Amino acid sequence: MAITVVGSVAFDSIETPAGRKERCLGGAATHFSLAASFFCDVRVIAVVGEDFGAAEEAVFQAHNIDTRGIEHAAGKSFFWEGSYLDNLNEAKTHNTELNVFAAFEPKIPAAYRDSEFLFLANIDPVLQRRVRDEMPGAKMVAGDTMNYWIKDHRPALAEMLKGLDILLINDGEVKMLAGSGNLAQAARAVLAMGPRTLVVKHGEYGATLFHKSASAGRTAELRVPALLLEEVVDPTGAGDSFAGGFFGSLAAEGELTPEAFRRAMFYGSVMGSFACERFGTERMQKLTRQEIDGRFKQLRALTHID
Amino acid sequence: MAITVVGSVAFDSIETPAGRKERCLGGAATHFSLAASFFCDVRVIAVVGEDFGAAEEAVFQAHNIDTRGIEHAAGKSFFWEGSYLDNLNEAKTHNTELNVFAAFEPKIPAAYRDSEFLFLANIDPVLQRRVRDEMPGAKMVAGDTMNYWIKDHRPALAEMLKGLDILLINDGEVKMLAGSGNLAQAARAVLAMGPRTLVVKHGEYGATLFHKSASAGRTAELRVPALLLEEVVDPTGAGDSFAGGFFGSLAAEGELTPEAFRRAMFYGSVMGSFACERFGTERMQKLTRQEIDGRFKQLRALTHID
Repeated sequence: MAITVVGSVAFDSIETPAGRKERCLGGAATHFSLAASFFCDVRVIAVVGEDFGAAEEAVFQAHNIDTRGIEHAAGKSFFWEGSYLDNLNEAKTHNTELNVFAAFEPKIPAAYRDSEFLFLANIDPVLQRRVRDEMPGAKMVAGDTMNYWIKDHRPALAEMLKGLDILLINDGEVKMLAGSGNLAQAARAVLAMGPRTLVVKHGEYGATLFHKSASAGRTAELRVPALLLEEVVDPTGAGDSFAGGFFGSLAAEGELTPEAFRRAMFYGSVMGSFACERFGTERMQKLTRQEIDGRFKQLRALTHID
Repeated sequence: MAITVVGSVAFDSIETPAGRKERCLGGAATHFSLAASFFCDVRVIAVVGEDFGAAEEAVFQAHNIDTRGIEHAAGKSFFWEGSYLDNLNEAKTHNTELNVFAAFEPKIPAAYRDSEFLFLANIDPVLQRRVRDEMPGAKMVAGDTMNYWIKDHRPALAEMLKGLDILLINDGEVKMLAGSGNLAQAARAVLAMGPRTLVVKHGEYGATLFHKSASAGRTAELRVPALLLEEVVDPTGAGDSFAGGFFGSLAAEGELTPEAFRRAMFYGSVMGSFACERFGTERMQKLTRQEIDGRFKQLRALTHID
């Protein structure tokens, strides 16, 4: 199975208690693609500027990621500068330059159109919806969003949500979207907006999986904790790496059974934990499938009772 | 096996989004005892005033809790008034009246002295240490503390910690005690202060179990999520109920194997979830062992993969 992902490919300058790195390769589509590439074929739709060169292209190629959908435009790539000095759970944005991303019009290469899995990373919900409509063959569509769209772009977001099978979203954002501080209630409300499945990411506390269900007493399907890291070097991209591990693992399964969803949650948590260990995409670039499977077992042992 | 618990027995006036209740029976020793009583014999050491009457006594008796260590003093019982209107995870204290609790000098009945399990609920660490020293036969000693003692009573707290086998503590408090925002690092630092085992409670995100270990790469032993509740009526006593379920389950086990600790974490999470469903001790008063075992299975299913 192949996943097509649409989203940002960017450069990030990041400061954390562990140090500072200038212009790391980043962006939601980048982090998602690298994580998913350990499980299945990945095809990217994005736009970059003239500062995206052979070195950046090589990162994608090393993971066999199809970059024919990355448009090269005149100007500079999306740039973000932020820090996590006070709180590793929440970035403080110092600077955002949309650059070529401001006029992003996703173009889907013909070779991508048979993708059965589609991931709409966090961009304007109008664009997310458009890509979804242009990929009618996608049998499983997942997406992410953020507080900015929830606050000020409700109608477009509502349309986008109707086109999703799975929404992956942060704890604070699902509560904001639903207008409820109770996770069980918020999940129920968001599942009524379109997606059949909801994955709520709790950062250092893991994630929760919900399925739409007729049975009244039913709420969460699975809760997976996060692995504990001795040092969180850079949390940028952890949520996108979770999504890549989750959706990549799902795409690699033959059948989308409840067990397949459960394994996907564990792989999401595993990939999110690796992402935090180095700046930008450094950890993903050196990661092996063996390390992933080792950590999967470790996470299973961390939650298991007979 | 029997547990002796020393701590507060109090009256609480509580306001939450679900309503308001005046003078509920409360206090850490009360919540702990009721939860633990479903698993083993429980003996309480506390002090109450003249407002503690037959109705309150009957709550303990209905659960076969030994109250011979509850001293009746002239005056009023410890009283706390608080609300959770903005945030169900953190109480806002409106009023605290120590009353008879201000001069509390724990007295251990002769009949309690063969208790093999001792729980030091959150009180002055000087008193916790004294009780511990007066129960040399206790083979497993657990305790709790809070930010007030961590901030301003470090030397006494350090002495108390040296006498503990197990410390149960909140997420924010373990980080404050260790002076580290990283849970893995904080846990390591706290385990160096005395206890062999550390249970960190994350409120709505569950809890994490750590054991002291020589192996360098080893951090958490088990992470258990919390059950999702459709409505949190009153979180007062959830942490003490977790502790009661955890320590009660441990006391009921024949051998303290790693698996026994894992089951104890699950029972702690289960008892914490029940505590939130009604005001004060209402839910615990009506709870059955069958409901506990049903929810244990539910929690297991919520975390399990093959």
